[in-house]
Amino acid sequence: MKSDLDGLMQTKNLDALIVLGNAEKNPPMYYLTGGGHVSDALLIKKRGEIAALYCNAMEREEAAKSGLRVIPTPVGALGELLNDPKKIFADQNIHTGRVGVYGTLDVSVTIRLIDALRAALPDIEFISEMPHESLFMYAMETKDEAEVERVRRMGRATVEVVGLVAEFLTGQEVNAREELIQSNGAPLTIQDVKNKIARWLAERGAADVEGCIFALGRDAGFPHSVGNPQDILKLGQTIVFDIFPAEENGGYFYDFTRTWSLGYATPEAQSLHDEVKAVYDKVIENLDVNADFREYQKLTCDEFAKRGHKTPMHNEGILTEGYVHSLGHGLGLNVHERPGSRHTAADDNRLKPGVVFTIEPGLYYPERGMGFRIEDSYWMRPDGKAELLAEYPYDFVLPMKKWKKNS
Amino acid sequence: MKSDLDGLMQTKNLDALIVLGNAEKNPPMYYLTGGGHVSDALLIKKRGEIAALYCNAMEREEAAKSGLRVIPTPVGALGELLNDPKKIFADQNIHTGRVGVYGTLDVSVTIRLIDALRAALPDIEFISEMPHESLFMYAMETKDEAEVERVRRMGRATVEVVGLVAEFLTGQEVNAREELIQSNGAPLTIQDVKNKIARWLAERGAADVEGCIFALGRDAGFPHSVGNPQDILKLGQTIVFDIFPAEENGGYFYDFTRTWSLGYATPEAQSLHDEVKAVYDKVIENLDVNADFREYQKLTCDEFAKRGHKTPMHNEGILTEGYVHSLGHGLGLNVHERPGSRHTAADDNRLKPGVVFTIEPGLYYPERGMGFRIEDSYWMRPDGKAELLAEYPYDFVLPMKKWKKNS
Repeated sequence: MKSDLDGLMQTKNLDALIVLGNAEKNPPMYYLTGGGHVSDALLIKKRGEIAALYCNAMEREEAAKSGLRVIPTPVGALGELLNDPKKIFADQNIHTGRVGVYGTLDVSVTIRLIDALRAALPDIEFISEMPHESLFMYAMETKDEAEVERVRRMGRATVEVVGLVAEFLTGQEVNAREELIQSNGAPLTIQDVKNKIARWLAERGAADVEGCIFALGRDAGFPHSVGNPQDILKLGQTIVFDIFPAEENGGYFYDFTRTWSLGYATPEAQSLHDEVKAVYDKVIENLDVNADFREYQKLTCDEFAKRGHKTPMHNEGILTEGYVHSLGHGLGLNVHERPGSRHTAADDNRLKPGVVFTIEPGLYYPERGMGFRIEDSYWMRPDGKAELLAEYPYDFVLPMKKWKKNS
Repeated sequence: MKSDLDGLMQTKNLDALIVLGNAEKNPPMYYLTGGGHVSDALLIKKRGEIAALYCNAMEREEAAKSGLRVIPTPVGALGELLNDPKKIFADQNIHTGRVGVYGTLDVSVTIRLIDALRAALPDIEFISEMPHESLFMYAMETKDEAEVERVRRMGRATVEVVGLVAEFLTGQEVNAREELIQSNGAPLTIQDVKNKIARWLAERGAADVEGCIFALGRDAGFPHSVGNPQDILKLGQTIVFDIFPAEENGGYFYDFTRTWSLGYATPEAQSLHDEVKAVYDKVIENLDVNADFREYQKLTCDEFAKRGHKTPMHNEGILTEGYVHSLGHGLGLNVHERPGSRHTAADDNRLKPGVVFTIEPGLYYPERGMGFRIEDSYWMRPDGKAELLAEYPYDFVLPMKKWKKNS
């Protein structure tokens, strides 16, 4: 939690930290400023002190919403830092020690800044931490009730929109080729569906910031294929619908997946979906507070391997079919954050009280034209119970309202 | 244009370039890949050769849409580069020379990567260019017809949505305090309006990726205030509505501003709006192909100074009122790109055939509770004519349908 920052700085032996970039699509900056339309900012915080926020003078009113000490500059915060790297550090009375550097920024600007800082301030050591091991990832790993309520709100928006999509799809006409046909006679494409998803999310104050996955048939067999916009929806094909919207302007995410087959499913697809659901259920039944997240990845791999599928723990190299990824991940201002579940992760990836995480087993068979994933997001509550943050049914076959098998 | 890249690499004496980060919200990467859901990518291009795109194996299908040489890696492109910085450069047969580094990335990852590259490859000089002077900014500065058509499409979506907002606002009821009241009896807030904007944009395949500005009264007096979400809309207050949506998933932007006063305007506000419009018209009448963009900033400053306002050319320090910014900027995959109009800009910021640019004079008086800006986007066509990319009326006072002055 945010209140852990000073303690984490102590543990990591950091005397100060700086965060660079804009305030909205930049999780460490958003975490400390609460967002706002501040496009060019430098946050600087000494251990145990309130942060100062340097910004372009034009953006000072937006910056003031952060409640931090706002310092407007005529040329902008990063321009000021590049022009005279010593000045801001002298103003903040930082002359020696270890300073962590964070944020998201243009690569060239970062290189110029770090070169300028190192040259101008040889008595300061600038520390770069890998994102997944950083101070912020440790602080953000546990969430308080107010943060979780924001995730829950995104969860409610998500399942409402997923319900609207299901309702919409199952209400369409079907032609002789088993393609879905809109009321205007045009075939229904993935792009049509995605436009509706974006609109329905927007109506609920949620943004499809990273673009959802709505992948059909063979595309569903690639975990990260987002789907081909021109593809026409057809009955009896697997649809992997993975939706991860966030609050507008860079806030908290939700993450959710269902796999559907419209009208009917082939027996092979139904059976693979049943396997994924059985493994999902097994994991959920076994969720324990403070457990090692990697143990559930191992459980999942063992369960899938037992059923004859490849897994990253039982097979070497790049997997193109079977269970090809890890079980889940933390969720918050980043779609992916701590804890991680990869079997190669460090042993401090635990389901501590306060973590918000996904559970998302899947099976992928692109050569058979199908893929499957089921995903929900959970909060490990302070009382040690794992709370499902948004409920939604797990049905695989969605019956069509205007079409019957063999009709 | 993209076809200028090899020539620009020659001019800048670059033997190769690398671009880091994801493919969507990362303009140089988007420019070369065409987007796609590739979250962890490394693009490497030698002068005169087609680029290679390293990606996480899970994202290879998305990466393949780029048409580039796709090289999947088990740990992801940036992980591969960090683990063994020499390998990718050896694979690409790059052993010496000057390599430009571009993209948008986590600050710490960038620092670690550049340190690792410099240590492992001492015979290669890694070049960081400031974003506004970079190879990509020069290439992107001029657009072909296909790119402009995408900007035009965003322009059409923009003015349609602006029209819907005007229609919606003027149709509301008004209470005795001259506040707008929704059909359910609740006062109409800026957040309500922004939710509608997001929805109406989404329906048109446009995304409010950076969040629009809808700033009322005193907030309108700060060029970059996005408006207070809880503020209730009132008659007779200036509204600066600056909307800059982009194609979904990181494509081309449009940029547009109108200033409105609902129901009526104070004579002072009407007169200031008339001044901004007169200056806007004067600039547009004088637009010439190949002209120095800075000349129009000078013209604008002179026009405003003549009328008694402060300007960045006539006054020192941080301006908090008057005409406080520059006249316009290039527009494309970035909301702000070349050419620039600041009077301190380099002399190669010209309205060359192919540039897409904004013209946006404004006046700001926060202490008087008002601000004004008028902005349109133009394309300097190959035939030397400046084409307005989306038409919309310039009315300041929007009459309310259910309310009359002194009613």
